[in-house]
Amino acid sequence: MSGCSIAVVGATGAVGRVFLRILEERRFPADRIRLCGRRSVGTALTVNDRRIIVEEVTPELFDDVDFVFISATTEVSRQIGPLAARKGALVIDDSSAFRMDADVPLVVPEVNADDLCGHRGIVSIPNCSTTPLAMFLNPLNRLNPVRRVIVDTYQSVSGTGAAAVDEMMSQSRNVLDGLPVEPDVYPHRIAFNALPHVDDFGVNGYSTEEMKMARETRKILHEPDLAISATCVRIPVAVGHSEAVHVELTRPMSPEEVRDALAASPGVTVVDDPQGAVYPMPIHAEGKDDVFVGRIRRDLSHPNGITAWLVSDNLRKGAGLNAIQIAEEVLSRGLLKTPGRRTQL
Amino acid sequence: MSGCSIAVVGATGAVGRVFLRILEERRFPADRIRLCGRRSVGTALTVNDRRIIVEEVTPELFDDVDFVFISATTEVSRQIGPLAARKGALVIDDSSAFRMDADVPLVVPEVNADDLCGHRGIVSIPNCSTTPLAMFLNPLNRLNPVRRVIVDTYQSVSGTGAAAVDEMMSQSRNVLDGLPVEPDVYPHRIAFNALPHVDDFGVNGYSTEEMKMARETRKILHEPDLAISATCVRIPVAVGHSEAVHVELTRPMSPEEVRDALAASPGVTVVDDPQGAVYPMPIHAEGKDDVFVGRIRRDLSHPNGITAWLVSDNLRKGAGLNAIQIAEEVLSRGLLKTPGRRTQL
Repeated sequence: MSGCSIAVVGATGAVGRVFLRILEERRFPADRIRLCGRRSVGTALTVNDRRIIVEEVTPELFDDVDFVFISATTEVSRQIGPLAARKGALVIDDSSAFRMDADVPLVVPEVNADDLCGHRGIVSIPNCSTTPLAMFLNPLNRLNPVRRVIVDTYQSVSGTGAAAVDEMMSQSRNVLDGLPVEPDVYPHRIAFNALPHVDDFGVNGYSTEEMKMARETRKILHEPDLAISATCVRIPVAVGHSEAVHVELTRPMSPEEVRDALAASPGVTVVDDPQGAVYPMPIHAEGKDDVFVGRIRRDLSHPNGITAWLVSDNLRKGAGLNAIQIAEEVLSRGLLKTPGRRTQL
Repeated sequence: MSGCSIAVVGATGAVGRVFLRILEERRFPADRIRLCGRRSVGTALTVNDRRIIVEEVTPELFDDVDFVFISATTEVSRQIGPLAARKGALVIDDSSAFRMDADVPLVVPEVNADDLCGHRGIVSIPNCSTTPLAMFLNPLNRLNPVRRVIVDTYQSVSGTGAAAVDEMMSQSRNVLDGLPVEPDVYPHRIAFNALPHVDDFGVNGYSTEEMKMARETRKILHEPDLAISATCVRIPVAVGHSEAVHVELTRPMSPEEVRDALAASPGVTVVDDPQGAVYPMPIHAEGKDDVFVGRIRRDLSHPNGITAWLVSDNLRKGAGLNAIQIAEEVLSRGLLKTPGRRTQL
């Protein structure tokens, strides 16, 4: 595979740093790498044994770049994404800016890689809570259509960013030392607490994160009418989002059938021996690529119900890994610069 | 109200210590207080300005005692409970030993105080996750029968006991200092982690705690056929159990109606302005008596659905407070020594 040229926007953030590590691990064929940041401009990072200085984002940056990976704020994505796409790059964006746009594929490669074929220069990756849910639901949905999903999350602070991890750690130390705690990133103390608050709230009482989980899952699964209700909660964990999921299927399905379907699904690992204290946990999922599923059981409250517990590394499969997998898929399918896209730009 | 004589078994445990504080706060009319422990025998506690030495449990202890409050292990309750009841005491038990026995009332005073009338010397208090759920469901169920409940918990370590709080704190310090962590109370690290594991697991894949939430809620609400599915998860919080609840009612109900019903319900406080970052949290519920409910919204996945988030102090309403409220109810109704009970013993 011939090398390509990439730009990484948000290179020094929580996702950006993991992204660069995964780039190295997977030997992604990037000959030229440019790193961009805001507060970190001028600092140096080492990628593939090369020292790279973090630059400011300028329009010229995207001249002759194949992929632009953006993991910054939604505002940054909105400013940079269309610009980079117009210059001929394929933008792989980690924000919610374009996810629900009809002409932007929202892709989990193991689930809907074919959606990449219609791209017009921007591909979005789903929210870090949506991706593991979609990977769990997809194999079940193919065998036994999913009717309704209830999901409650246990989300780590790294989903908010590196500053939130620092805040949790420093607050924890203060609590242990009996010192006062001043919330900054979050509206309340996160150390030794639980916040049912991820992103802003809408008039229907759901948070934006909760609505993302519903809308994005429907788009990825091509199930526009799927009933989903989520409660998203931040808990004091550094890395790894957990989810308690309750699914209503069209027909009854045994836990064994569910385990078999999941075990045969790429990117999913079944970890399910609760009597042996074996189940997915954030501390085990951190640094791993797969979505881990356990506590699989018949939902006693519904004849066609299945209940499970899933955990994945929100910085990897929930963000950086998924972005790189999309780029790999684009390269292997020869979709980087399609004639269709050229005519669109 | 004339004073009575009480014995507290498990006086120095996590629940016991809070229990004694509540006893003082509420000026419970206990003239004579005997405290029992196991490892703490010989140590002294101060209750109502009196210094009381912790004794070993002996059969003689229960001679001429009106109430025996037990908060120890299920084994201790099984050994002591029937003995104390035979001696004429009313046992108020915090363990799961007798909860599902047909002749043992399982009581949340705000919900089913009338069940106390049939007591035969032992009254159980529900599991600390069940009590807040029952207090949330009861006012809704009276207006609009509840058909199905899905609940996922975010439980604090004090529910396991004082040693678990110490373990979480010392593990947290080790993680912050980059030192290794040795799990002891829990099978895995609890600091900065989430364990979908509360109590043992049964063959149906549910944990005992999850099954308790279903069975006990049905008994308290007198709804033997209510469909309930729970996932119980331990998170690194010291005090305060949180629950994400999804309810299917018989008819649609607006969030406003739900708020009104809850606000009119004793022991429940509605804390619900998410856009103002106002919702129940463990750090606010700790040390408080009420069950706090917020994030009340229509469940978008079901026409008759309501979703909410509730938090309560598992040591107070979940344990010690509920026990004392039962004793107060027994005294005010003159149920301490009923003729019916006397003939049974």
